[in-house]
Amino acid sequence: MTRQNAQALDARDPLASLRAQFTLPEGVIYLDGNSLGVLPAAAPARVAQAVQQEWGEGLIRSWNAANWVNLPQRVGDKIGRLIGAPPGQTLAGDSTSVNLYKVLSAALLLVKQQGDPARRVIVSERSNFPTDLYIAEGLARQHGFELKLVEPEQFAAQFGPSLAVLMLTHVNYRTGRMHDMAAITRAAHGCGALALWDLAHSAGAVPVDLNGADADFAVGCGYKYLNGGPGAPAFLWAHPRHLERMEREDLWQPLSGWFGHAAPFDFSPHYRPASGIARFACGTPPVLGLTALETGVDTVLAAEPLGGMAALRRKSLALTSLFITLVEARCAGHGLTVITPRTEGERGSQVNLARGEGAYAIVQALIERGVIGDFRAPDVLRFGFTPLYTSFTEVWDAVEHLRQVLESGEWEEARFNQKAAVT
Amino acid sequence: MTRQNAQALDARDPLASLRAQFTLPEGVIYLDGNSLGVLPAAAPARVAQAVQQEWGEGLIRSWNAANWVNLPQRVGDKIGRLIGAPPGQTLAGDSTSVNLYKVLSAALLLVKQQGDPARRVIVSERSNFPTDLYIAEGLARQHGFELKLVEPEQFAAQFGPSLAVLMLTHVNYRTGRMHDMAAITRAAHGCGALALWDLAHSAGAVPVDLNGADADFAVGCGYKYLNGGPGAPAFLWAHPRHLERMEREDLWQPLSGWFGHAAPFDFSPHYRPASGIARFACGTPPVLGLTALETGVDTVLAAEPLGGMAALRRKSLALTSLFITLVEARCAGHGLTVITPRTEGERGSQVNLARGEGAYAIVQALIERGVIGDFRAPDVLRFGFTPLYTSFTEVWDAVEHLRQVLESGEWEEARFNQKAAVT
Repeated sequence: MTRQNAQALDARDPLASLRAQFTLPEGVIYLDGNSLGVLPAAAPARVAQAVQQEWGEGLIRSWNAANWVNLPQRVGDKIGRLIGAPPGQTLAGDSTSVNLYKVLSAALLLVKQQGDPARRVIVSERSNFPTDLYIAEGLARQHGFELKLVEPEQFAAQFGPSLAVLMLTHVNYRTGRMHDMAAITRAAHGCGALALWDLAHSAGAVPVDLNGADADFAVGCGYKYLNGGPGAPAFLWAHPRHLERMEREDLWQPLSGWFGHAAPFDFSPHYRPASGIARFACGTPPVLGLTALETGVDTVLAAEPLGGMAALRRKSLALTSLFITLVEARCAGHGLTVITPRTEGERGSQVNLARGEGAYAIVQALIERGVIGDFRAPDVLRFGFTPLYTSFTEVWDAVEHLRQVLESGEWEEARFNQKAAVT
Repeated sequence: MTRQNAQALDARDPLASLRAQFTLPEGVIYLDGNSLGVLPAAAPARVAQAVQQEWGEGLIRSWNAANWVNLPQRVGDKIGRLIGAPPGQTLAGDSTSVNLYKVLSAALLLVKQQGDPARRVIVSERSNFPTDLYIAEGLARQHGFELKLVEPEQFAAQFGPSLAVLMLTHVNYRTGRMHDMAAITRAAHGCGALALWDLAHSAGAVPVDLNGADADFAVGCGYKYLNGGPGAPAFLWAHPRHLERMEREDLWQPLSGWFGHAAPFDFSPHYRPASGIARFACGTPPVLGLTALETGVDTVLAAEPLGGMAALRRKSLALTSLFITLVEARCAGHGLTVITPRTEGERGSQVNLARGEGAYAIVQALIERGVIGDFRAPDVLRFGFTPLYTSFTEVWDAVEHLRQVLESGEWEEARFNQKAAVT
């Protein structure tokens, strides 16, 4: 595999035109779209319009005139098209952590309503993203549940009468491994438990079919593969059967703010949850964040005429496979271990490498060369591949930089080891 | 009082120069800064910089390079200067509703720790802003407390052994009445209860001294008098004695997300709350929203060399007094009742009028004339006066429009009665 081969792959890439949707900095190979997606070229003008016209000129009238009031639903429905959810099932707003709190609370409440005091275990993956574990730890403490953290090999042993909720991130942030949503959900349902999915590394990255998999609840992140901007609003989804049951049994999600009220502008002193997914809304929606997020989601929807998520998935697997092949061929003997599964069906849109020492410094040395991946403690070098804008030639060049960093030993220079607050 | 008198007041207004900080639409008299503050002239360029340079060019590196990671603290500290809180006590982020959930949860937890099962009543004002009541209603349900809604005249009767938390909005959104924070907090403490304050209509509008009043917890809104933009992040504050006690007794606020962790970038699987106010952080901070909010807060801080909140308060009272005087003199006989207290110490920065019928339509007719106030169900016309940018001449002109709307009867036209989704 030569650089010319990679260039040839780009020349016949049916999705190559999608890259023009983005503003990418000069001299950068960006392999961190799994942490913060790049800037959609449409975002600056759209955000400026929201700031200058909608806010500045329209002022309070824009709640109606610019339809701010409906942004969580409108953006939610667009995200729904990427995760197998028809309109009306997905809501954008708040952070992933806050949304997880809402839906996991609802799940625990539904389990409690069943009246079986033995069903009190929440299971998750030990290397799930920490904020998910922290939210679950807090809720377990609050509701008298146990949070049990296991390795994927132990999932099968968890399906039993004590399992209340299996909560997983569909693609693990640390290993890049993608779990089988349909099979795991089926197994959870088989023992009477619920399955909750975090789509942080899935939405916009791999095909997801929440309804097809019969999932119970889901949350996801707006600022990774959805390109919604730093700290963009997140999203949540709940299966209609649970929304209907919550309505029937008058169960509230705990963050019962006014935007989740059946008639928020009646200013009634008593809470009455809205029907459908709107009952999971809380405070006033973050208009600027949702506006930027919408431009980001639109960049993914732009792939629909070219084959949509299925076509993006094909390219994503080609990119990650090429990266794995090149790392193994060209960086052999440098102590790197590919920890992302080689089986394509188990791989998300990232490749993670582990190295006993130096992982942080190697990532820093690469960043200085303009190859931006990231480090995840304690020993992971993480590279995300975004089929919307990553090219095969960039993959080739990134591996060449990695090879040079390892062979030169430049990463051992002291300056690459000074840890910054965030990486 | 003539229009010339009002113009003379503007000519000698020591704060008149502050208006140049804003971009106000032509032909509009904006009396709704208590709902959505106007656009700071600095905001478009600052937001564009965050979008194009920090996000677009800096990408993931901006968490450190642009100090995104510290935005909740930095903006929180700036807000702290307006509410009597030294640096390190205030945190910006999430919505007011979500922040109220966090601090009211913490308050209930602290009460429960005292081990007195008779202390289980949360008291609030019946006409408190609904989202506050809804959040409290949900938490009361969840924790086995009673939420009791009373009129201000009944506050005195609530101070007793069953009172757990008195939760009030400092300036009532519906009546414009300002409560005596210090006296009410003292009375709450006198019976062993906690006092929680919502500063939605106070921060940037009236002087607030949380530490001086010895308050327990507070939240507030970023998009009203702080001019942070539509759906801007909100803020929260907790007295250091409670933060210390929560640390000592290992009490967690319920939204235990990763940004509230003592070491979020260690990616440890177990939650360990940060020290100080940071334990009230939750998910990834909303960078674009916080950036816009900072420009808004800066417009209020710009008054510091001119006398700060005390000077703004003097002008605010002069504006609201003028409005009341003119409405009573020039709109007499049209069925309007001033429901905002005439006593200056009990008045926020708004004047609310009640009218048995037509309140909604009159507000709409005024908006068509370019005088933007708002309607609050069922019968309130609400006018906010923002001393940063409202002039005395605008007050005079607004009342003249109101007089004309009432005398012409134009508000009775059918089109003014078609209720929009949001007003």
